[in-house]
Amino acid sequence: MCSKSHTFPVCTIACSTKFTRLPHLAGTEQNLRYAEQIRDEWLEFGLDSVEMVPYDVLLSYPNKSQPNYISIVDQLGNEVFNSSLAEPVPEGYEDTSNIVPPYSAFSAKGQPEGDLVYVNYGRTEDFFQLEREMGINVTEKIVIVRYGKIFRGNKVKNAMLAGAKGIIMFSDPADYWAAGVQPYPAGWNLPGGGAQRGNVLNLNGAGDPLTPGYPAKDYTYRFSLEDGVGLPKIPVHPIGFHDAIHLNMGGQIPPNNWKGALNVSYRIGPGFTDDFKSQKVRMNINTDNKVTRIYNVIGRIRGALEPDRYVILGGHRDAWVFGGIDPMSGAAVVHETVRSAGRLLSKGWRPRRTIVFASWDAEEFGLLGSTEWAEDNAKLLQERAVAYINADSAIEGMYTLRVDCTPSLHTLVYDLTKQITSPEEGEEGVSLYESWHKRDNWTNDRDAPRISKLGSGSDFEAYFIRLGIAAGRARYTKNKKTERYSSYPVYHSVYETFEIVEKFYDPTFKRLQAVAQVRGGLIFLLADSQLLPLDADQYADSLRKYAHSITQLAQTHPEEMKVYEVSFDSLFSAVENFTVAARDFHERLQTLNRADPLQVRVMNDQLMYLERAFIDPLGLPGRPFYRHVIFAPSSHNKYAGMSFPGIYDALFDIEHSADPQKAWEEVKRQISIAAFTVNAAAMTLTPPA
Amino acid sequence: MCSKSHTFPVCTIACSTKFTRLPHLAGTEQNLRYAEQIRDEWLEFGLDSVEMVPYDVLLSYPNKSQPNYISIVDQLGNEVFNSSLAEPVPEGYEDTSNIVPPYSAFSAKGQPEGDLVYVNYGRTEDFFQLEREMGINVTEKIVIVRYGKIFRGNKVKNAMLAGAKGIIMFSDPADYWAAGVQPYPAGWNLPGGGAQRGNVLNLNGAGDPLTPGYPAKDYTYRFSLEDGVGLPKIPVHPIGFHDAIHLNMGGQIPPNNWKGALNVSYRIGPGFTDDFKSQKVRMNINTDNKVTRIYNVIGRIRGALEPDRYVILGGHRDAWVFGGIDPMSGAAVVHETVRSAGRLLSKGWRPRRTIVFASWDAEEFGLLGSTEWAEDNAKLLQERAVAYINADSAIEGMYTLRVDCTPSLHTLVYDLTKQITSPEEGEEGVSLYESWHKRDNWTNDRDAPRISKLGSGSDFEAYFIRLGIAAGRARYTKNKKTERYSSYPVYHSVYETFEIVEKFYDPTFKRLQAVAQVRGGLIFLLADSQLLPLDADQYADSLRKYAHSITQLAQTHPEEMKVYEVSFDSLFSAVENFTVAARDFHERLQTLNRADPLQVRVMNDQLMYLERAFIDPLGLPGRPFYRHVIFAPSSHNKYAGMSFPGIYDALFDIEHSADPQKAWEEVKRQISIAAFTVNAAAMTLTPPA
Repeated sequence: MCSKSHTFPVCTIACSTKFTRLPHLAGTEQNLRYAEQIRDEWLEFGLDSVEMVPYDVLLSYPNKSQPNYISIVDQLGNEVFNSSLAEPVPEGYEDTSNIVPPYSAFSAKGQPEGDLVYVNYGRTEDFFQLEREMGINVTEKIVIVRYGKIFRGNKVKNAMLAGAKGIIMFSDPADYWAAGVQPYPAGWNLPGGGAQRGNVLNLNGAGDPLTPGYPAKDYTYRFSLEDGVGLPKIPVHPIGFHDAIHLNMGGQIPPNNWKGALNVSYRIGPGFTDDFKSQKVRMNINTDNKVTRIYNVIGRIRGALEPDRYVILGGHRDAWVFGGIDPMSGAAVVHETVRSAGRLLSKGWRPRRTIVFASWDAEEFGLLGSTEWAEDNAKLLQERAVAYINADSAIEGMYTLRVDCTPSLHTLVYDLTKQITSPEEGEEGVSLYESWHKRDNWTNDRDAPRISKLGSGSDFEAYFIRLGIAAGRARYTKNKKTERYSSYPVYHSVYETFEIVEKFYDPTFKRLQAVAQVRGGLIFLLADSQLLPLDADQYADSLRKYAHSITQLAQTHPEEMKVYEVSFDSLFSAVENFTVAARDFHERLQTLNRADPLQVRVMNDQLMYLERAFIDPLGLPGRPFYRHVIFAPSSHNKYAGMSFPGIYDALFDIEHSADPQKAWEEVKRQISIAAFTVNAAAMTLTPPA
Repeated sequence: MCSKSHTFPVCTIACSTKFTRLPHLAGTEQNLRYAEQIRDEWLEFGLDSVEMVPYDVLLSYPNKSQPNYISIVDQLGNEVFNSSLAEPVPEGYEDTSNIVPPYSAFSAKGQPEGDLVYVNYGRTEDFFQLEREMGINVTEKIVIVRYGKIFRGNKVKNAMLAGAKGIIMFSDPADYWAAGVQPYPAGWNLPGGGAQRGNVLNLNGAGDPLTPGYPAKDYTYRFSLEDGVGLPKIPVHPIGFHDAIHLNMGGQIPPNNWKGALNVSYRIGPGFTDDFKSQKVRMNINTDNKVTRIYNVIGRIRGALEPDRYVILGGHRDAWVFGGIDPMSGAAVVHETVRSAGRLLSKGWRPRRTIVFASWDAEEFGLLGSTEWAEDNAKLLQERAVAYINADSAIEGMYTLRVDCTPSLHTLVYDLTKQITSPEEGEEGVSLYESWHKRDNWTNDRDAPRISKLGSGSDFEAYFIRLGIAAGRARYTKNKKTERYSSYPVYHSVYETFEIVEKFYDPTFKRLQAVAQVRGGLIFLLADSQLLPLDADQYADSLRKYAHSITQLAQTHPEEMKVYEVSFDSLFSAVENFTVAARDFHERLQTLNRADPLQVRVMNDQLMYLERAFIDPLGLPGRPFYRHVIFAPSSHNKYAGMSFPGIYDALFDIEHSADPQKAWEEVKRQISIAAFTVNAAAMTLTPPA
């Protein structure tokens, strides 16, 4: 194996500064400028081709002349308190124009007014607890929830389902404040005036809300806004905790786990304390949806021997404001990887397979750039894509490596990280693998660094969950055991600057370099190894583990399992078939005649198509664009990856169904689909004739 | 090109007799015996492997102790006339047991009683005419329609939609009687006591009604009968014209084109003539649905160089009774092709690609065997199948060749038939191409033998319409200009014997041999040519033709086209893109380095995946298993192939929609999907990187 892989993405990161000086929200002039600059530099670096690929997608912006805010209104209708219209701008950026204020993209417009109800994190279980245990109905109320734990779009969906007429989300220090750390700029915690931007869609993988299933080209048919996918029907707005403390909630005292870290009582409402009982909350939301042109930048290195096999490194470029962490710490990695690859090309190197580099647009608005391109190129990708490596934020903490990927990439990730040096001080001569392993061992059963399932929340989604392309992501992360805040404190605020990375997260840029080496190394090895470095045995192991956990979940209903004759035997038998097929496949690989290009291609195709075997074109129930039978984002939190999501969701519905027989029938149907899919995947690994 | 192709399927047809002596309905012991015999002989012939592949699908049989029949009942409820319980058995078969009487498979059970209404062929337009022009409502009536013009399942669907509570179908001599020909056994016309069996499902490609989308294995989840796909909710029964003339219809005189060739008035009803006004019709239907085991036989010749590329020759084995024409005239062709291939194998030949031979079961019950196997092997087929050639009835007339196939096979069909000898007397030394061309020139614009679009009604459906595998079928046919009867007169009756072929259709067996040479030749050339003999230019030509005809159809509404801003520009532009890409592709093919196995494979893959490019995983509206954007069976007659079916159906709905704006929006959406799909297909033909 080529030793170049270890130094291939020599990461200078300097480029990060030049792409973080100015706000570059999707659909803006500045984000187009950056796209052009990236295109020009990639061409200069020596890629075979670079193109700008535009789509016209639905975006959402605050109305510049009618800002969004939350008010407290007295009984005369006077606004006695208004939430802030913007975050205090960090030092050095005072003269910057086009900083979009905190808002919830795709919020409905409107001025709902009413009593406030606090619903903790706005999770399904929080709304259940509110309604069933506390007896509070939020119909016609405005709910307020704290950010964290789940994707904000799911909070909004839950609020809508519960009947609320508006929803306010705030950042609580309990969730966006690390112990012993100062707020930015003295430290990396979220200032009280900061708030989290973000889209509040429920797309379930549809991409552009107006063109589900098809790329948003000039001639593409667009649904009306009423028929668009995943658009919330109620106003939504985010605030920081300096604003949140002004809401003098009355009503019941909440359970302790509903209490955040502010010096207030976290009462549930409805409405304010007795002193302010006559006051209401009014949301003033004037955000506009607008079909807007976005630009992906797509660069290519043509494969020398198999130009029709694609290895993709993609990450987004658009940022809520400066994007110091999200996404530019990742985009810089892509840029440096392209630079390094260009250097190698100029020395005569050319990979066996084609490498595709992508700078996606409008990720923040629902993974739109990457999903539209996946829709546009679905056939080519289905037939030709070997793997997709995602390059969003390269850093969300300072503790160790975090990898989420498909099981077939586990072995490659381990092999690769053993050849990369730890970026941590005092670990000279220690491998990244060892450093990572020491900090995050998988489980008691498995002595290896932890690798997680892919959920969603970044651009790999359409590639992995819709198209079934082996995918992975890597970044530097926090210590999950001790650092309990969500994502990282300044996430999606104006305080995500280049300086926060340089001063706090990675002053020596060694962590970013390690992440770059992982991402670039994966791309290099996938593109240039004669035999694809994908491991079917690992997939078998993971399937067995998932089958056991989903069975355990079902067995919390032992009575019904008997009554409705629910059995997981077919699934375990399928997993066994898959295990045998995978083992036999890797054994045959040992004796493959590597000098015969067709024989090599045949077995590589089996490896490439392994992930595709888990795709069901019929999709998951109610989620036609989530088609992976083994992995999907949770229906209740798109950030989290579920295994056997069809079975999982059916089991979840058991608890809430009025017709338990029907609900259990659906569990049985989903077990049958899972068993069939795993059996079919096993068949793809057997000798082809 | 190897000259062996012309003699490869040396057709002895003798096998046809041994598989037509006994009734072999799907799901019966005898059909399993034939399957075992085929398996054993294929192994003997020398195939590399042969397996029996069982599925447990929903079949439907008459109740042996409670036969189905139609009665006329008087006002006291006495049955004053009963339709015959069976067809007179042909000479030589008097002692044969297990001849299933004529019935409509999957009919609902029941004894509906009421007035009869005659609705011509039971087409959509017939029901419209009945309701709108004649002012007759069939709610709570039993309808009677003649067989012919469209698939019987569509007649049943139309009757249900119109509100009828039962439907009787009869064979009219106008539709099942050739001029100057005696009824069987003196000739090949349908005797008056004969009737047409057949299933009356509306599956739209779903396969087994209880397991749509998934193979019907032991562990597969099954829907209840109520939730099954395409099962009619009303009783259905077929009768011959000897029974039909007893129904003394009263009411309006019908238009001339509603009149058949019986010596009766073809009045429309409701009810009988005045003399018999108090009499009613009663249907007595006791047919049972039953999950039953069926068996496909799958044989394989492993490809020498590309074992993972499949060329499939498949045809069904199950017959309503003896299957002298349908299917055994086709199954014999498969059998003889296997024998010939075995002979070549024993001489050291081995094709470049894998050949798969299939003897399907339960075609007559909704293409079940072939569809379940397609579902079972969907991933392998999507990734590896080059082409599917169907082998149902090899003969339906005595006039000339008939070929229905995908446009990319046109050139191969022409090239091949130029090298096959005409089977017609007096045409020694004339090619099949010339003989065919002389009898059935395409159009004034195109001087070549006519090739038609694939519709459905046989086992290619799942392979072509669901999976997007290039497909074709060939048979000997009648002269469509002079012979106006539907299919062939004895179709699906007990009179489909080996003798009817031997005595009338093909006494020298030369026509069957010619069909065998076409089918076998296609398989051979597809499996053994270094470059796949598929023609993208022909696809471009066809797409242009289809785009013009669908545009012309839309232009019958010039006003609305303007009001709703309907444009076909995007579709024509896509067809132009496709045309250029196809031309460039074939140009590059000229300079391909054929000594480089990977370069050859890359371009062959582009050809193989061309048909796949037209598949939309979202399916056609309301028909999730019809996924081919260019071709689908008509929504109104599954036998007929439509081009741009999504646009066509949307235009059809214009006429009947209460909301024209919404209907035109759907037309625009479908044009956009078609344009996108053709553009995406063009991309698959461009250089891969």
